[in-house]
Amino acid sequence: MSELSALSVSAFLNAVRSPNPTPGGGSAAALAGAMGASLLAMTAGLPKSRAATEEDAARLRAAGDRCGQFAAELEALIDRDSAAYNLVMSAYQKPKGTDEEKAARSAAIQAAMREAIDAPLAVMRACADAAEQGVVVAALGNPSASSDAQVCLELLAAALRGAKLNVEINLGSVKDAEYAAKIRAEVLELERAMRAHG
Amino acid sequence: MSELSALSVSAFLNAVRSPNPTPGGGSAAALAGAMGASLLAMTAGLPKSRAATEEDAARLRAAGDRCGQFAAELEALIDRDSAAYNLVMSAYQKPKGTDEEKAARSAAIQAAMREAIDAPLAVMRACADAAEQGVVVAALGNPSASSDAQVCLELLAAALRGAKLNVEINLGSVKDAEYAAKIRAEVLELERAMRAHG
Repeated sequence: MSELSALSVSAFLNAVRSPNPTPGGGSAAALAGAMGASLLAMTAGLPKSRAATEEDAARLRAAGDRCGQFAAELEALIDRDSAAYNLVMSAYQKPKGTDEEKAARSAAIQAAMREAIDAPLAVMRACADAAEQGVVVAALGNPSASSDAQVCLELLAAALRGAKLNVEINLGSVKDAEYAAKIRAEVLELERAMRAHG
Repeated sequence: MSELSALSVSAFLNAVRSPNPTPGGGSAAALAGAMGASLLAMTAGLPKSRAATEEDAARLRAAGDRCGQFAAELEALIDRDSAAYNLVMSAYQKPKGTDEEKAARSAAIQAAMREAIDAPLAVMRACADAAEQGVVVAALGNPSASSDAQVCLELLAAALRGAKLNVEINLGSVKDAEYAAKIRAEVLELERAMRAHG
């Protein structure tokens, strides 16, 4: 499956429900994040904002634009996460009869694992970044949309935590300890950033 | 818009992003819940479950089936929430020139508010019920899908909290104090149930 976002919402949900492993939790987290960021972009664009000066209005517009960009990134990550999972599955299915085959298979698994970590890590980054803009939207946007802004933060936080679980499960299979430590540090930092904006 | 779930994922996200008030946070919460329930249904159906007896296998199957039903309900609620919002907007636009018109407008607003409360309340119920089944899936399902099961619970909890915000904002416009108190009590109970399953 190469274009999950081209499926209807109904067909996407059916695909999640199907016994196929993809789309799985990583793609669902990316879509939840994309909804959160999209809703923030909408909220930022509502009339009757609280921006009292032209400078505040420009800040609100910029925050809305960035949320729109994060939403587009997260939408692309719906596919990227499932593609990464499929890459991992293919790597595990490589032959392992000879020592050369074993080495090639192991290298392919490690390369695929990096992609299967980088994809949910990118989801985490986009969600934390969108939540940061959400603070601007909540402060300067239309006050009657404040419940929508809070729904956004709930969705972004759930998406970040869901993506984190996928990063962590894949980190368990990574052999490069230095890379793994670097990723773990960034995961902690992104969680901290999300808590600061929640 | 009458069939949001027939839109592509991409078009749905664009519609959320657009300046139109619907689909808004309520529909996004319903879709997040539908993803969580769908993912639980998939997880319940995976081979290599931990169900050791035929009785446990039957419990796991039943939990998966119920999650599939909750997912279908939540999918229908994506549309129902947006329709309810549109109903509220139409009611507010009714004429209010004469006393009769004012009374009719007020009655229409109150009726629309009930639907705009009942829809996110139904989202909350389905999410809490799916999370209850999630406990069975997490305990008896394939252990390697445990991160997916946790993503489900994150999504269901975020959807429940997002829907709760919409229930509460609409409760503020309800005049029937007895009805409002009954709804508030159920909201608290559903939150408690979700926390027990998270």
